[in-house]
Amino acid sequence: MNAVNQIANTPAPPYYAVIFASVRQESDESAYQRTAARMMELAAGQPGFLGVDSARSDGLGITVSYWQDEDAIKAWKHQVEHTQAQRMGRENWYREYSLRVARVERAYGFRSTD
Amino acid sequence: MNAVNQIANTPAPPYYAVIFASVRQESDESAYQRTAARMMELAAGQPGFLGVDSARSDGLGITVSYWQDEDAIKAWKHQVEHTQAQRMGRENWYREYSLRVARVERAYGFRSTD
Repeated sequence: MNAVNQIANTPAPPYYAVIFASVRQESDESAYQRTAARMMELAAGQPGFLGVDSARSDGLGITVSYWQDEDAIKAWKHQVEHTQAQRMGRENWYREYSLRVARVERAYGFRSTD
Repeated sequence: MNAVNQIANTPAPPYYAVIFASVRQESDESAYQRTAARMMELAAGQPGFLGVDSARSDGLGITVSYWQDEDAIKAWKHQVEHTQAQRMGRENWYREYSLRVARVERAYGFRSTD
């Protein structure tokens, strides 16, 4: 979960990233938003969760969550409330999505001194 | 470069992802947009480029580009026009950014049949 205008502050690599790209379909926006917020809250409480960045524009959403290791990703995937949300996603909310699991090997950042 | 509402169509893993998360600062929007579009065009012409997904909301932007291997990423990083854009980015456009290079190990997708 990250505040507006704040990039996830992750530790030094290696760690894992789950890259979720999605295209929504017409559906109940408030139910979607409520579930999305709940999933952010639940993910942040999972062991091995390191952070998340999320953005959506022109119908395309990208959420990248960061995890200590593959076991943490698997545990989150199978978290009961999350599996229900995944099913809702396929049945109601997403026209299309892709999910990629990647091992972050190097990372660097920049912050303006202005 | 991907059309609106279309997720990058990448080959089977392994391949690499460059996860770029950024927070803009106040600056010339048209110059930024022009350069961003030019960079998309240039990246798409680079050897080893596999696709890109990009979204921005609430000031936070996420662009994930996909590459065949690390060499392709390095060649893109050092492409002359791109290095100039990177400098402009640090000097004018970004308040903060993070860049992560990750090896995509597994991936799957979903498409609604509705």
